[in-house]
Amino acid sequence: MSGSCGHRHTHDEAMLSVEEALERILSYFEPLEAVDVPLAEAGGMVLAEDAVSDMDVPPLDNSAMDGYAVTSESVAGAGAGSPATLRVAARIAAGEVPSAPLEPGTAVRIMTGAPVPPGADAVVPFEDTDEVERRRAGRTLGEISIGAPAAPGANVRRAGGDIRRGQTVLRRGTEMGPAHIGVLASLGRAAARVHRRPRVAILSTGSEVVEPGRPLPAGSIYDSNGAAVAAAVLEAGGVPRPLGTVPDDEAAVEAGIDEGLGSDMLVTSAGVSKGDFDLIKDVLARRGEMQFWSVRMRPAKPLAFGLLASGDGSGRTVPHLGLPGNPVSALVAFEQFGRVAIARMLGRPRARRPTVRAVLDEPISNADGRRVYARVVVSRRGGTYHASLTGDQSSNLLTSMAHANGLAICPEDAPGRLAGEEVDVVMLRWPPDVF
Amino acid sequence: MSGSCGHRHTHDEAMLSVEEALERILSYFEPLEAVDVPLAEAGGMVLAEDAVSDMDVPPLDNSAMDGYAVTSESVAGAGAGSPATLRVAARIAAGEVPSAPLEPGTAVRIMTGAPVPPGADAVVPFEDTDEVERRRAGRTLGEISIGAPAAPGANVRRAGGDIRRGQTVLRRGTEMGPAHIGVLASLGRAAARVHRRPRVAILSTGSEVVEPGRPLPAGSIYDSNGAAVAAAVLEAGGVPRPLGTVPDDEAAVEAGIDEGLGSDMLVTSAGVSKGDFDLIKDVLARRGEMQFWSVRMRPAKPLAFGLLASGDGSGRTVPHLGLPGNPVSALVAFEQFGRVAIARMLGRPRARRPTVRAVLDEPISNADGRRVYARVVVSRRGGTYHASLTGDQSSNLLTSMAHANGLAICPEDAPGRLAGEEVDVVMLRWPPDVF
Repeated sequence: MSGSCGHRHTHDEAMLSVEEALERILSYFEPLEAVDVPLAEAGGMVLAEDAVSDMDVPPLDNSAMDGYAVTSESVAGAGAGSPATLRVAARIAAGEVPSAPLEPGTAVRIMTGAPVPPGADAVVPFEDTDEVERRRAGRTLGEISIGAPAAPGANVRRAGGDIRRGQTVLRRGTEMGPAHIGVLASLGRAAARVHRRPRVAILSTGSEVVEPGRPLPAGSIYDSNGAAVAAAVLEAGGVPRPLGTVPDDEAAVEAGIDEGLGSDMLVTSAGVSKGDFDLIKDVLARRGEMQFWSVRMRPAKPLAFGLLASGDGSGRTVPHLGLPGNPVSALVAFEQFGRVAIARMLGRPRARRPTVRAVLDEPISNADGRRVYARVVVSRRGGTYHASLTGDQSSNLLTSMAHANGLAICPEDAPGRLAGEEVDVVMLRWPPDVF
Repeated sequence: MSGSCGHRHTHDEAMLSVEEALERILSYFEPLEAVDVPLAEAGGMVLAEDAVSDMDVPPLDNSAMDGYAVTSESVAGAGAGSPATLRVAARIAAGEVPSAPLEPGTAVRIMTGAPVPPGADAVVPFEDTDEVERRRAGRTLGEISIGAPAAPGANVRRAGGDIRRGQTVLRRGTEMGPAHIGVLASLGRAAARVHRRPRVAILSTGSEVVEPGRPLPAGSIYDSNGAAVAAAVLEAGGVPRPLGTVPDDEAAVEAGIDEGLGSDMLVTSAGVSKGDFDLIKDVLARRGEMQFWSVRMRPAKPLAFGLLASGDGSGRTVPHLGLPGNPVSALVAFEQFGRVAIARMLGRPRARRPTVRAVLDEPISNADGRRVYARVVVSRRGGTYHASLTGDQSSNLLTSMAHANGLAICPEDAPGRLAGEEVDVVMLRWPPDVF
C-alpha cells in the first residue's frame, strides 16, 4: 500500500469521468457461459435462452372448483325452486382421468384440478347443488339436484389457458424470481439454463494490514476490505474467493495474482494511488495491460483496471479491478464498478440501484470538481425524502458507510449543494419503514 | 388437494383480516438462537448482540498521506520562497512502528497508514516538499525543504478517530451489509454473532401433482409450488428443505410432516380450502393445534396455520403454514405470511416491502369485500408511477405473477378501484430502470 521509494515510473494516469471509467471497464465483460442450475437455486440468475414450452399448461381442460361437470344445456333452466336433477355417472378425483365422455343429461362429480370429461362444458360448484342436504339426509349420491344455471365454460380451466405448447414463456435475459421459477417448474423442468455466477477473487495488499482473527502487531491495522468486498460480491450475485492479505513484497503480490487467475475477476485493494508503493504497480504493469486512473469522483479517485496474464505462458488472463485502500473508497468504487461488472457477467441488463430525489439536511461541498458520493441516511418526512449526512465524510471512516442507506450525489460541475437543495440519492439499502 | 368425500368435520374456519392472520402467525415466531457466522457470509443476517469494540480504530495516530511527519511549530513560517529545511531523522513504512519520538526541528519520512511518531503533530504531503527535485538532482534525502505551513493535526488520523475502545459500534438488531461487515473486520473479528437462518421444509400435497423432471401421467400436472416457494424462502433469507410431493394419502402426509419436524417451519401447499380433500385436514388436526382460516384477501383466501407435534411422543413441534394450492395464491400467501415469519426468525425488525403510490391503468374490481392483491407492472411516466394489470388475474395463472413487479392493493372496504385512481403498490421487485 505504501513504502519507501518515489515515483520512478510514468503509468497511464488518465483523468476519467465515472461514465468513461465504467464504459472502459464494461468493455472487458460479457455474460458468462450458460449452465443448468437446479430450479430452486436459480433466483437472481438470468435466463441464457428463451424458455419455450413443449406442453400445454394445464395439459387438459380441468375443473377450477370442487363440483359437478355438466353440459351447460342440461342446467340451462335450473333455479333454486326448479332444480335440474341429473344422474351422477362417475366421480373423478384429482390425478385421475375421465374413463368416458359425459353423456348428455348426466353429471360427473369432479374435484378441483381434475380433468373435465369430454362433452362437459361447465362445472357447477357444490354450493349450487343439494349434495350437503343429500348427505345429511343419508341419501345416495346417485343423482344430484342443481339449483342454478351454468354458462358454457363456467369453472373450467382450458387446456393451454396458462401456457400453450410452442409458446415462448420467458425471454432470454429474464432475471429469475420465485414466480419465474414456478413457471419453469409447471413446464416440468427441474433446472434453468442461466448464465453462471462469476467467481471473484479478492486480495488485500499492504504490509500493515492483518487478517481479522489474528493477533495485531504494533503499527498494523486489521484488513476490513477483504470481508467487506467479499460480502459486496455475494450481495451482487458473485461467488467470492477470499485470498487474504499480501505484504508489499513482489513475490507475494505475484503469488496472489496467480491465485486470482482461476477466477472471472480479481479485485485488489490498496496500492493504486499516486504516491503509493510502486512495487504493486510494477508487478501489475509487468503482468498485464494495467491502467492507473484518476476518476473524477470522491471518494475513490484512484483506480486501477486491466487484464492480467498468467506468468506461466498459459495464456490465461483475468480482468483486474484495483480499488483504493481506504475502506469507504474501496466500497464506493466497488459499488460503482465491481457490482456493475458482476451484473454484466450474470447477464443482467442493468445494475443501477434505485434512485430517489431527496432534500439535503446539510450542505455537501465539492472543492475540486469531482462527483461527490456523500453517505446519507434517507428518511421520509411529510411525503418528502430527506437526506442527512452520516457525520464525518473521511474515506477512512467505515462507520459512516455502515450507518448510511444511500449515497447523495453532488455533480462534478457543481461547487456543492446547499442544505435544503434537492439531490439524487442512490439507495444502497431500501428501508421498508421509510418507503 | 381434493378428493371424493364431503365435509365431515367442523374445523375452526374463522374469517380473519390479513392483519389478524399475520398477528396470530407471528405470535408463534421469535428470533432464532445466535450463532457465529464467518464475516463474509453474514450479509442479510441480523446481529444478535451489540458489537462493542475492545480496541481503538485506528489503533495509533497515523498518517493520512505519504509525506513528512513534523511538529507544526517547525514549519509555522514556511512558504514557497522561504522553506523550512529539516533533517530527516527516520523513515517509517506502513506496518512499521516509530523507533523513537520525533526530535523538534527534524522530520520523519512517513507513508500513508504508518504510525505518526510521538512528538509529531502534522504530516506534510510530498507535494509541499522538494523531494522530487532532490531526487531528480541526485541529492540525498538526509534533509528536506518544506514550502508550506501545516496546522496542528494536519493529515494525522487520530487513534480511535473511527472507533474508540469500549464504544458500541453496531447495535443488536442491525441487519448486516458489506460496510457493517467491514466495521467488524476492522475490530479484528473473523465472525459475526447473528441469529441463524431458519430451515424451512416445503411439501406439496395432491395426488395430481408430479415433481418437475419426472414423466407426467395423464390427468396430472407438474408441481410448481415446491420450487417457487423454495426460491421465495431463499430470497427471504431462509434455508429451503424441499420435501417434494405427497399424494392425498394419510400415511404419505404423516411421513411428510415427520420429515418437516426437523425444520423451523413447515410450509405445505394445497389441501386447506373448504371442500378440499379432508384427509389432509384430518391428519393436521390430529397432529397439532391446526387452524383453518378464511383470510379476507384475494387471492389466497384459504389458509391453515398451527403447531404440529411429532407423532413419536418426543415433544418436538414445528409451526406449519398451509398455503392454498393455486400457484399465484400460494406465492401471494407466502409473501404475506411466510416471508414475514422468516424475517421474524432472522431477527429483522420489519419485513415489509417498499410501497409506492401508483395510478391504475385498468380498474380493479372487488366483488366480495376482500383485500385484493392485483398483479401489476409499475412504470414511471412523467414523474408519476403507473400500474398496469398483468392480464388475467386468475389465481392459477402463474405467468401473470412472473410478469408483475408489484401487487396493487384494493382495500377490503372498497368496491373496487377505477382506472386513473391512485393505489398502494407493494413492490416485489425494484426495477432500477424505472425508479
